[in-house]
Amino acid sequence: MKHLLGIRQLEREEIEAILRQAEAFKEVLERPIKKVPTLRGKTVVNLFFEPSTRTKLSFEMAAKRLSADTVSISKSMSSIEKGEDLIDTVKNIKAMKTDCFVIRHPATGAAHMIARYTGCPVINAGDGINEHPTQALLDCFTIKEHFGGFKGLRIAILGDIFHSRVAHSDIMALKKLGAECVVAGPGTMLPPHIEVLGAKVEYSVKKAVKGADCIICLRIQRERQGGIPLFPSVREYANFFGLYPEVLEFAKEQAVIMHPGPINRGVELDPQLADSSRSLILDQVTAGVAVRMAVLMMLLSARETL
Amino acid sequence: MKHLLGIRQLEREEIEAILRQAEAFKEVLERPIKKVPTLRGKTVVNLFFEPSTRTKLSFEMAAKRLSADTVSISKSMSSIEKGEDLIDTVKNIKAMKTDCFVIRHPATGAAHMIARYTGCPVINAGDGINEHPTQALLDCFTIKEHFGGFKGLRIAILGDIFHSRVAHSDIMALKKLGAECVVAGPGTMLPPHIEVLGAKVEYSVKKAVKGADCIICLRIQRERQGGIPLFPSVREYANFFGLYPEVLEFAKEQAVIMHPGPINRGVELDPQLADSSRSLILDQVTAGVAVRMAVLMMLLSARETL
Amino acid sequence: MKHLLGIRQLEREEIEAILRQAEAFKEVLERPIKKVPTLRGKTVVNLFFEPSTRTKLSFEMAAKRLSADTVSISKSMSSIEKGEDLIDTVKNIKAMKTDCFVIRHPATGAAHMIARYTGCPVINAGDGINEHPTQALLDCFTIKEHFGGFKGLRIAILGDIFHSRVAHSDIMALKKLGAECVVAGPGTMLPPHIEVLGAKVEYSVKKAVKGADCIICLRIQRERQGGIPLFPSVREYANFFGLYPEVLEFAKEQAVIMHPGPINRGVELDPQLADSSRSLILDQVTAGVAVRMAVLMMLLSARETL
Repeated sequence: MKHLLGIRQLEREEIEAILRQAEAFKEVLERPIKKVPTLRGKTVVNLFFEPSTRTKLSFEMAAKRLSADTVSISKSMSSIEKGEDLIDTVKNIKAMKTDCFVIRHPATGAAHMIARYTGCPVINAGDGINEHPTQALLDCFTIKEHFGGFKGLRIAILGDIFHSRVAHSDIMALKKLGAECVVAGPGTMLPPHIEVLGAKVEYSVKKAVKGADCIICLRIQRERQGGIPLFPSVREYANFFGLYPEVLEFAKEQAVIMHPGPINRGVELDPQLADSSRSLILDQVTAGVAVRMAVLMMLLSARETL
Repeated sequence: MKHLLGIRQLEREEIEAILRQAEAFKEVLERPIKKVPTLRGKTVVNLFFEPSTRTKLSFEMAAKRLSADTVSISKSMSSIEKGEDLIDTVKNIKAMKTDCFVIRHPATGAAHMIARYTGCPVINAGDGINEHPTQALLDCFTIKEHFGGFKGLRIAILGDIFHSRVAHSDIMALKKLGAECVVAGPGTMLPPHIEVLGAKVEYSVKKAVKGADCIICLRIQRERQGGIPLFPSVREYANFFGLYPEVLEFAKEQAVIMHPGPINRGVELDPQLADSSRSLILDQVTAGVAVRMAVLMMLLSARETL
Repeated sequence: MKHLLGIRQLEREEIEAILRQAEAFKEVLERPIKKVPTLRGKTVVNLFFEPSTRTKLSFEMAAKRLSADTVSISKSMSSIEKGEDLIDTVKNIKAMKTDCFVIRHPATGAAHMIARYTGCPVINAGDGINEHPTQALLDCFTIKEHFGGFKGLRIAILGDIFHSRVAHSDIMALKKLGAECVVAGPGTMLPPHIEVLGAKVEYSVKKAVKGADCIICLRIQRERQGGIPLFPSVREYANFFGLYPEVLEFAKEQAVIMHPGPINRGVELDPQLADSSRSLILDQVTAGVAVRMAVLMMLLSARETL
């Protein structure tokens, strides 16, 4: 593993190795001194071309807990007109002898293009509507932590599947690990041929949720609708595609709820359910730091376990 | 002491313990290597919902000198519509296993609300027109450093008492430590019932300054007047409520001048006086780092001295 | 050397000492752990009053690799009306016991003024159209690394000499080190009396490039033309003053190309040439970190070699 560009490029064994390493790092997060010297003297560059608080912070905390130095560059899209400029920027930063790029970009394939032009590891922190691999890895970590494994699990993903890079990465990761994956959402938000990724498609959330062990709710990606009025509207969405107690009843009795955040409370998810004992949402956030520590360590450290 | 939300919640003994610890850290600031390992592996989160350069920088430097990691989140108010969102944000960051929140917010009680919903220490770095406890602690540190104690001292606080969280915290801290406190300012900027905090009220600055050992000038809080035209005007304010040599004459011969910064030179304070040997303004800034180191250490370290 | 305000103030021996120290640090940048403990416990303040990605990042990385702490303050010009405010800001930050200011400012002499009012080292990271000394030092480092020395070298600097603080610092540094310097550019972009700095002036780029060992292309400083329409236009500039293969032919056979970045590809420099084996542009970027480490170390460390 030289880069982490997408779940698509990973073998099942690689995913399992990352999850194992993340388990070790999750224990570090419970210690009084939450820091290991693994990446001392390395510099991780956060290149975020889309607004982000939590993913950027999560990577920054992961890097610092490995004792790496971090620098952040947030560029508004207005200052980038051509992909050529971005490559010049990256080559320049690389010439300062940095060790890793974490990149979020609104264009699909941005991380892949940068990976081709730099000699150092690139981590895709979300590229357009394509993939968000560390989110899928932390979702898998959370599911494995709760259920002990993936065999026989039925995972329902609800919402705007078309514009959700999280959904795309989740479906591929869960399939590789052996879980059954079913998606549901408004017809306007379901991509054609999503079955090729390995998910079953339902047009009713109740059908999707039926018998599910875990339900992942997605945020409506208003910023990715291309300026078209939202259809269905937020109110229609909440009524027909949100996760509320009367929908959750269709799931298994012990079913759990996940969400990549930030939550639109009262839209895709009932506010009480979000805070209930069935919600693993904050566990996902903790898992995020551990998983990102594992990825950074495996890409950057000579002592890697892969 | 689990949080530092306000001077109101502190006992005299707690204030004194912080000042003693800050004295020890002030010595660290004079060393060639201005760093101690006290908080290695801890992460301090700066959450600033109001523009701030100096307070934010002071907390950041304090944390770094204790070897803590720091992360900063500056949110423009436009992106926060409901208190609920803020609590979700904080719970998320906390789930990344951070150790302390330093929060500045335009709403009174914001720090208190966050303290109720997180399991980790919260430091109020200014909430609306309510309190700014670390500023009061650094003011007390500076006074104690200069005079050796508080007994028998007369401290005059001049200016916009109503909108000054600094004044509110200062009055309570100075009273708890045994100093006499008198405030003066335009009638439009004096809160009703300010006496209950323990300050005497004068409507003439000369009367307030008379016999004072220390005069604290406040900045006009234009941003907190709620859009009402400033009354008195800046020119009237300077004429009748500013500290100029002819007013300072009424104070004790050795009286000193303080100001929480940034100074509006020529408005609330004479430019020459601000730079004179009687000004302790830059000593306050140095004290700020030492006091914040003490507060962070006492809230976060197992080896706390309280 | 107490400050680094400009090449103008440096003796040839001081420049050579910096280059020697930078050579040692360049080796550090090739190690697996690219960090030395030289400035542990020191705090470097980046004060950037002009937008900058690469210079700011380069200083930040240099400081971190010396184990210093860094804090950054980016102020939009709108919040600075008077020089007096800037001095108050700097005095305040200094009172927090910081150790060094790195300042970029649109006004000529800003760094010099700050140096007069603070007791700690100041590094000029670019002041208006005056000087950018660390850029000149890294240019000299790159030339020395490539050619082994400066004796007998002919360096051509092409472009907007008038508004280029890089050109001014380069000319003075190269002359002090013994190279011959020739400048060329549109008449509207050549300052009167530039010869006093030690450069020969040509009005044709081919004449300037003739026999050159090294050609430094400059970026058109659109932001410094004072709102006057660009004359020559970008297209005219590319045609008559850009570096393209047919111009490069006039130089020595082994001549190399440099550029302070960011490049306007296809304007002042042919895109293919920028990426060719004759380009030292990325070497300059690497040299920048090493040179800035040397300057920080020599200004801040007790163990300085000067």
